[in-house]
Amino acid sequence: MTKCLLLAAIAAVALPLPAVAQTMDAAALRDAALRDEIAWDITEGLTTEVGPRLAGTEAEARARTWAVTKLKALGFSNVRVELFQMPVWVRGEETAEVVAPFPQKLHLTTLGNSGATPADGMTAEIVYFPSLADLQAAPEGSLKGKIAFVSHAMHATQDGSSYGYYGRVRFQGPGIAAQKGAAAIVIRSVGTDHHRNPHTGGTNFPKGVTPIPAAALSIPDAEQLERIVKRGQPVRLKLVLTPRQIGMRESGNVIAEVPGSDPAAGIVLVGGHLDSWDLGTGAIDDASGVAITAAAAKRIMDAGTPRRMIRVVWFGAEEVGVFGGRAYAAKNGGDNHVVAAESDFGADRIWRFKVNLPDSAKAIGDRLATALFPLGIARSAEKAGDGADVGPIMAKGVAAIDLNQSGLDYFNLHHTPDDTLDKVDSEKLRQNVAAWTAMLAVVANAPEEIGPVTPAR
Amino acid sequence: MTKCLLLAAIAAVALPLPAVAQTMDAAALRDAALRDEIAWDITEGLTTEVGPRLAGTEAEARARTWAVTKLKALGFSNVRVELFQMPVWVRGEETAEVVAPFPQKLHLTTLGNSGATPADGMTAEIVYFPSLADLQAAPEGSLKGKIAFVSHAMHATQDGSSYGYYGRVRFQGPGIAAQKGAAAIVIRSVGTDHHRNPHTGGTNFPKGVTPIPAAALSIPDAEQLERIVKRGQPVRLKLVLTPRQIGMRESGNVIAEVPGSDPAAGIVLVGGHLDSWDLGTGAIDDASGVAITAAAAKRIMDAGTPRRMIRVVWFGAEEVGVFGGRAYAAKNGGDNHVVAAESDFGADRIWRFKVNLPDSAKAIGDRLATALFPLGIARSAEKAGDGADVGPIMAKGVAAIDLNQSGLDYFNLHHTPDDTLDKVDSEKLRQNVAAWTAMLAVVANAPEEIGPVTPAR
Repeated sequence: MTKCLLLAAIAAVALPLPAVAQTMDAAALRDAALRDEIAWDITEGLTTEVGPRLAGTEAEARARTWAVTKLKALGFSNVRVELFQMPVWVRGEETAEVVAPFPQKLHLTTLGNSGATPADGMTAEIVYFPSLADLQAAPEGSLKGKIAFVSHAMHATQDGSSYGYYGRVRFQGPGIAAQKGAAAIVIRSVGTDHHRNPHTGGTNFPKGVTPIPAAALSIPDAEQLERIVKRGQPVRLKLVLTPRQIGMRESGNVIAEVPGSDPAAGIVLVGGHLDSWDLGTGAIDDASGVAITAAAAKRIMDAGTPRRMIRVVWFGAEEVGVFGGRAYAAKNGGDNHVVAAESDFGADRIWRFKVNLPDSAKAIGDRLATALFPLGIARSAEKAGDGADVGPIMAKGVAAIDLNQSGLDYFNLHHTPDDTLDKVDSEKLRQNVAAWTAMLAVVANAPEEIGPVTPAR
Repeated sequence: MTKCLLLAAIAAVALPLPAVAQTMDAAALRDAALRDEIAWDITEGLTTEVGPRLAGTEAEARARTWAVTKLKALGFSNVRVELFQMPVWVRGEETAEVVAPFPQKLHLTTLGNSGATPADGMTAEIVYFPSLADLQAAPEGSLKGKIAFVSHAMHATQDGSSYGYYGRVRFQGPGIAAQKGAAAIVIRSVGTDHHRNPHTGGTNFPKGVTPIPAAALSIPDAEQLERIVKRGQPVRLKLVLTPRQIGMRESGNVIAEVPGSDPAAGIVLVGGHLDSWDLGTGAIDDASGVAITAAAAKRIMDAGTPRRMIRVVWFGAEEVGVFGGRAYAAKNGGDNHVVAAESDFGADRIWRFKVNLPDSAKAIGDRLATALFPLGIARSAEKAGDGADVGPIMAKGVAAIDLNQSGLDYFNLHHTPDDTLDKVDSEKLRQNVAAWTAMLAVVANAPEEIGPVTPAR
């Protein structure tokens, strides 16, 4: 939808707000946010002036410095960094080639926590598994000295739910292959594009299992390798993957606040994660998320003092194991958080919202429906609880609101070198800011008390 | 258009052929070719079983072996290789990073004939030029010790004509920068996509000018570097580019024939190029071209003996300087070629055709219009003469026919790692085969004599 059409649609359907006392006009703030420039400025600045920012590296430290400067310049209160320690894995060389029967290079990328090959590489025959279930069915020890190749095609879904389903090949596949004695594993990238840009991401090896080299082929390369396998001749791959675990390093959460008028009303926590994978500049994952949430909070701050404090957190070290979210909850769990919400699913159009509110605050959900409807956002009957970083605080019973972006294109870019600024649509980014601004205007000012809930997960 | 729609459209508009004697029914052969499997088989086989095939390398030699086997299996006559010698340039390491003010890696690829940096790289300040004209306007010597950065955005055109216009930054930019004393040059890729896949391609240094390191940034990286430049601080790049000229090596043209019934009627030459750039598997450039032309010739062969011999040539070493096309014309220029046509613009839908025929053979163009119209192919008033490999033979006055594929998507893939099989649409490939089959049925059987013409270029 173009901006003009969107504004016309809003004009056509605008309804009076419910007769609950509000100190801010959510509809007016929402509509003004459709002309937002703050979120683009943050997204453009962070991706340009810092670029990739792998957790625990000096690049992530530069990102924290950049974030503090930016959040102070925007006028937030109590801007600070809470540091923590975390184990750091760094990428090394990563090349692959078919040695036989049809010599050619393949594009792949190492998975987080992967083991390493010797510096000059390893060469072995591959064993092909069309799915993770086939790998699971392989007899113990049957992979000894071999490279497992697991390929299955992920399909896009609007709600992003296919990531959990198809993603198991990355989350669990390397551990399973290692337990069966494989020398290494290559998987088809967990993604939906057709470019020579593999998707990285973390994997986990069960306790006591020595990590093996583990990498993801780009989707065209995985399909090429499948075609080669189907010729029926033994296929030998040479892999050079030299990542390293470099021990405990410093990461941190960057925190900024919009003070509230009623300290007893509790804190509304919003944010995203500041770290990114190292291959792209983390524009959709998650510069846009920190930008959208900070822009919305800034717009509320500029409109007056909300009833509740809005705390903006740009979490560190999400990608590599949600270290920032856990450190935050450990340190701040005693604070009176009443609602938590995170933006960590790109910058595409928000298409629905979910809540997890106590019955006593049910009316807030109804007012959100009214405020978000003109943006084309439908109410879902599902229970809110998205956002890895806010997961630990939600687990304590904090109420939740999800503003869900479309996932139909997200896995074309997620964790690839292609996650760059040109993929962010400034109009869609503004729709996000408008939705978050409307949500904060409603929630931070709601007269109802917001008590604890049963977490969705 | 789906196949069903296309067949329905053909049924609706099919017209009787002109009252010229023909030994083959062009319309029936065309329609049968819409179910072609041969072109896909060749494209899939060459890209899978050989993959990338840079001119003058052992990969291109494997491609020749593969081609001879395939063309013999298809039943062509007189399948042979004509070898020639050519200078060979090979890629080495290629990495780049912004050293200051915002450290980050950039994706680029070395241009053919580029010079090399020291093995451990070179670091220098960049000088930004928004266009080639700006580089041309820089004073002599003003670039001494600097890296020129030339960025301008190519826009797609259906006829592909923008390549000549925007491509000059690659063809000429490095030579101009070298003459002005630059230590190296990086350009924005000559392409229209937004992926982290840079576009390679050859460049040329004027005689007496020592080649400097020359590379193309992917388009997102070029835009990132422009944003960094616009911050106003000096920008320092580190480049590691270690290509080498390895001297004269062997390449070759693979030739196959469909004998004609009337040796005096001359030869119809069709084909594409067998070599590819080394980054992708050369699916659209130009496995599909050799596949389309060979499939069409095979379909004519299976329908009977045409009046004229059809000679299929899979040229070697096109990408790096049209060595195969020149070697062919030098060796076979004395043969009686009457028409030449090449497919070297991908596998998208053919949207128009052009001819360059002598007046005495004008009726052939009219019959082509009738035969191609049902495929959605319009007649152009422009003069035919496309195809780098057939250029040298056309320069001798051989008549020409162009079947033009749409260029709107071609430069998303051209010369990138992304030129892989998944980018070929099998239905569009069949439309190509149908058009080439119809063209050959008309031209190889035309009763008119086809004399020399004034070349289009």
